[in-house]
Amino acid sequence: MSTRVTSPAGSQALLSPNVVRSTVLPVIQQKVSLLDPPTLARICRYHLGFIDEHGDPSTEGVGKLTRAGLMTAVADGVGLLPEDVRSPAAAVELLHNATLVHDDIADTDELRRGRPAAWKVFGVSLAIHAGNALQALGLRIVVDDSGPGHNEIASSFAKAVALVHAGQARELTIRPGPGAGMATYEQMVTEKASALLEFSLGAPAIRAGKPENVLAALRDAARHLGIALQISNDVEDIWGDPAVTGKPIRGDIKRRNLTFPVLAALSADSPAGDRLSRLWQADGTTPAHLQALADLIDEAGGRHAAERLSGRHLDSAVQALGRAGLTPTATAELTTLFDRIVNRAA
Amino acid sequence: MSTRVTSPAGSQALLSPNVVRSTVLPVIQQKVSLLDPPTLARICRYHLGFIDEHGDPSTEGVGKLTRAGLMTAVADGVGLLPEDVRSPAAAVELLHNATLVHDDIADTDELRRGRPAAWKVFGVSLAIHAGNALQALGLRIVVDDSGPGHNEIASSFAKAVALVHAGQARELTIRPGPGAGMATYEQMVTEKASALLEFSLGAPAIRAGKPENVLAALRDAARHLGIALQISNDVEDIWGDPAVTGKPIRGDIKRRNLTFPVLAALSADSPAGDRLSRLWQADGTTPAHLQALADLIDEAGGRHAAERLSGRHLDSAVQALGRAGLTPTATAELTTLFDRIVNRAA
Repeated sequence: MSTRVTSPAGSQALLSPNVVRSTVLPVIQQKVSLLDPPTLARICRYHLGFIDEHGDPSTEGVGKLTRAGLMTAVADGVGLLPEDVRSPAAAVELLHNATLVHDDIADTDELRRGRPAAWKVFGVSLAIHAGNALQALGLRIVVDDSGPGHNEIASSFAKAVALVHAGQARELTIRPGPGAGMATYEQMVTEKASALLEFSLGAPAIRAGKPENVLAALRDAARHLGIALQISNDVEDIWGDPAVTGKPIRGDIKRRNLTFPVLAALSADSPAGDRLSRLWQADGTTPAHLQALADLIDEAGGRHAAERLSGRHLDSAVQALGRAGLTPTATAELTTLFDRIVNRAA
Repeated sequence: MSTRVTSPAGSQALLSPNVVRSTVLPVIQQKVSLLDPPTLARICRYHLGFIDEHGDPSTEGVGKLTRAGLMTAVADGVGLLPEDVRSPAAAVELLHNATLVHDDIADTDELRRGRPAAWKVFGVSLAIHAGNALQALGLRIVVDDSGPGHNEIASSFAKAVALVHAGQARELTIRPGPGAGMATYEQMVTEKASALLEFSLGAPAIRAGKPENVLAALRDAARHLGIALQISNDVEDIWGDPAVTGKPIRGDIKRRNLTFPVLAALSADSPAGDRLSRLWQADGTTPAHLQALADLIDEAGGRHAAERLSGRHLDSAVQALGRAGLTPTATAELTTLFDRIVNRAA
């Protein structure tokens, strides 16, 4: 009964989600519940899924704490205990959630994890301050952490904060055009998606005093994982199941965001690509319009290109992970985590 | 020609604004101009007054860099050079401006320093990200600073960030009522206004390795200065000159913000206070309505109470400053700065 089942990547039983629930989640819950004024605590607890709109306890809408999971798995792989990375793990989740609160306002996204976004429930003003409060809380936790490598970890955190915000702004500046849009897209992704993953994979290695070649391999893994994840999210927005994503379908197309499948389809020299180009400029946002756009993106090869590239980056992430020389158990755990993050197999 | 004129507080020639212009401002200008994507640099440079709406160089709208001025003056008073506090001084100005960008969105304030607020020019989405970018830049500068006391300074910065955001949120939760509103107001002010001043006065003393009694005196000075400043701003909103404040008059009353003069007037047991209480509930926002409210606030003693309390806190700030044992020159400079900050005598 207690034998651990070894199985192919993607189906292995994961340890890190339980570790996160017992080690990192209580810190987040406690710190956030102490936020003052209580209104701020309430908004943040709502966004994090600890309470519902009426303030009653809830578990619906709690995120997967992916980044904390990655961090505890790497910690295990470099000989640390989960407790050793509890502070940076809590901090990265708080920062990630801060960006979600602000992003939902900036994108006027009304749903988050299947529930009304924080700004829809509490208003834009308080939601802006709540996002800032989550970020400030993460910052305090990292800055006041005094474990090994704390200066380097804090510096790495500050860099990630700056990159994430740069990526969020850059996303609004993507314009189509031969090559140009794709280059901006790639840079946006490495900022918006990869930066926090880089912190998540890197912080335990810094704490354990690992040499530069290990850090470089983990940075590389994080970069590829971020690109794979973002492209996979882009595909999910168009062809995914809203019950899984927790968001209305085709919000990106509705807002005419130039996500990867769209950029790939627009750059295709084909009749479908040309028709897409014309229809993309038009105002239509009815389900029929969005369906027509989705079909043209698919027909012009945007979906296929996206799925192939996401898969390639996932492979590259796993290869880079292999070069980091973590323990075999941790490498297996992380390989499964990588796969589930990108393919939402969980 | 080179003799320094010694004169009573309030009229003394100030050195710190020039020091800030030559030492801190270039760092801010350089760091902000390097923000990437360029859109982010442009919004931040616009907000800081370095360029106008069209991207042309400008000096109109550059803030007074009050907090950097305080910091360099304290640095001088503890035997440090302006260069020794250049990083924390730049960081506190960036953080302060980040809060202004977000506050203008949260309060739908359309004017800042006599020019359209950033969100009016660039839209809410980009302005949210720009505020975050300014805050992240400040954070990076503080975290990557390696001068003496850098850990304690970074921790103090992180605490200030958290308090400022708490204060901004608390401001939206103030409700009238006997005593209750005033207590919330005071707590809000010590968070929103005093926290950054505490960092500004405290960081140089930390860097110079000053003992706890010096830090405590400076904390006390900052707390009183923040309260005096905020109450003075409250009075300016109602009876000030928009050409000086750079904001439309009576925005606080229009939004029915419970600022100090209003809270004081509402708690007055007088016919004017009762009439104010009724009129405050009504929707009127025409200039005539706002004038009537302003007159009732004045008649119920709100203005007098505010001016007296602001003056008392300014006196307490100067007294606390005296206990910090800085050099006489720096103490005189700071006394003048305190007065100008509160009374906008500059």
